[in-house]
Amino acid sequence: MAVMKLKFLGTGAGVPSKSRNVSAVVLDLLQQSNSIWLFDCGEGTQHQILHTKIKPRKINKVFITHLHGDHIFGLPGFLSSRSFQGGNDPLTIYGPPGIKQYVETSLSISASHLSYTLNIIEYEEGLIYEDSLFTIYCQQLEHGIPSYGFRIEEKDTKGPLLVDKLKAAGIRPGPIYRSIKEQEVIQLEDGTTIHQKDYVGPDQKGKVICILGDTRAPHKNVSFVKHADALVHEGTFGHELKETAYEYYHSTTTQVAALAKEAHVHQLFLTHISSRYGNDDIPVLLQEARSIFAHTHIVEDFDEITLK
Amino acid sequence: MAVMKLKFLGTGAGVPSKSRNVSAVVLDLLQQSNSIWLFDCGEGTQHQILHTKIKPRKINKVFITHLHGDHIFGLPGFLSSRSFQGGNDPLTIYGPPGIKQYVETSLSISASHLSYTLNIIEYEEGLIYEDSLFTIYCQQLEHGIPSYGFRIEEKDTKGPLLVDKLKAAGIRPGPIYRSIKEQEVIQLEDGTTIHQKDYVGPDQKGKVICILGDTRAPHKNVSFVKHADALVHEGTFGHELKETAYEYYHSTTTQVAALAKEAHVHQLFLTHISSRYGNDDIPVLLQEARSIFAHTHIVEDFDEITLK
Repeated sequence: MAVMKLKFLGTGAGVPSKSRNVSAVVLDLLQQSNSIWLFDCGEGTQHQILHTKIKPRKINKVFITHLHGDHIFGLPGFLSSRSFQGGNDPLTIYGPPGIKQYVETSLSISASHLSYTLNIIEYEEGLIYEDSLFTIYCQQLEHGIPSYGFRIEEKDTKGPLLVDKLKAAGIRPGPIYRSIKEQEVIQLEDGTTIHQKDYVGPDQKGKVICILGDTRAPHKNVSFVKHADALVHEGTFGHELKETAYEYYHSTTTQVAALAKEAHVHQLFLTHISSRYGNDDIPVLLQEARSIFAHTHIVEDFDEITLK
Repeated sequence: MAVMKLKFLGTGAGVPSKSRNVSAVVLDLLQQSNSIWLFDCGEGTQHQILHTKIKPRKINKVFITHLHGDHIFGLPGFLSSRSFQGGNDPLTIYGPPGIKQYVETSLSISASHLSYTLNIIEYEEGLIYEDSLFTIYCQQLEHGIPSYGFRIEEKDTKGPLLVDKLKAAGIRPGPIYRSIKEQEVIQLEDGTTIHQKDYVGPDQKGKVICILGDTRAPHKNVSFVKHADALVHEGTFGHELKETAYEYYHSTTTQVAALAKEAHVHQLFLTHISSRYGNDDIPVLLQEARSIFAHTHIVEDFDEITLK
């Protein structure tokens, strides 16, 4: 099964700091579909991309969790530069109501003419996207303004051809192998009937990736993130600031660890870390969270995660 | 006379590169008026500020030369972060018509609530600002969209008190010295009349700083930048690309050097350098320009110029 990667471009909260930029994370689907999806686009996201191998023209979808500035102020610059750098492939933005007016006003007042077709879809809760490989669901979270989470489900794929078994049955490699993988039943020239199910291993389960926007009530999303292979979630504050977190509509690292545990996710990636936490504080936050959910990571800018 | 400083935060053109960010330059007036003025605010200007000693709350005026994205896309983030970091002093933006809608839409859609009063003034050509220390004039330039230049004139200040001459006349140091500096004529207790002009040196001439937006016709601005102590001007392309420069409404470094020479400016600072020019190309561009106007500099991000 093709490899997907998560690449974190901005892991800070609210304002950029020297060590963490504001929110952005890409889902690299180059192996699946020669495309990259961007989730949130805080100011300076295009600058962060300059320090990676990501080609802006390969980014063909941008998903916005909510309209706070640290999640959208990099969008007009990213869109313009993608054009300037010769991007011609269409790009679609999925965002909450308001995203269209923001993007269109910014591009129009700055007289930015794009070299590609830009589609802007203002989504609502529920199924927001489907193609032959993925299905994406969206759910509203509890935050100061409407904020959403995305559940990206990769579709199951057919299992591998059981080559040894085919050979043992006297069916030699050739175009016939492809036919067996694609058709449920085929008939050989000698009249033999071949049932796909006999020569193809079990379906390979698609991965599930959940990327959630800012929220103060992570516990409400257990079913939405259930069994995710990767959960990307804000953890703005540590446990000691849970009142502050609630007041500002944010989560604590331990609240999210509890969610990950209850939802049986595979790996938790905490991002959107308050700039009050320096390098020395991270191990403490991490330990607190791992005491609840062992597979917790606190990500940094430019961290790359391979989801095999 | 108090020292002014120019600090270049972004010296690139159109799109950010690893070595040059998009446009922004500050005029540091901390000695004059405990304030800093920002000219243009491309995306990532607030990130650049993080690497300087500039305090965002000290920036109380932002002047925008024109509405292209590489000059304004950093504005919403800068304004929001200034608030987040506890800025309470009012801030005024001076920009071309359209700037108000851009800023207000960005702040409103992102639900950014500022902790300070934000004034937005859409200027026209002519006198756009005056206080006890400075006068600022604005002139339209030739560009793809309305683009403007600013001529910042520091007012002349009274010359120094001629202390030796005062002492020779038997007038001893004390509060009287201040009176002589402030009033044209005063009478001493013994009836003597003192004329300020006899005891104060000649007026000290205020500095003139010209900061111009993008333009393809620098030669049209000779009278506007006449005798400037510092001229900050775009020089997007070298002489070899003068047709390209014209086509894209930009200047060449040599065209601007010719302007500086004809206008008898003191120092020319070329900025807005195309990302096509690497470190090795700059000495060539510089030599071409200096063969026309010797006091030419091609600035880099974080360059600081002290205007004594």
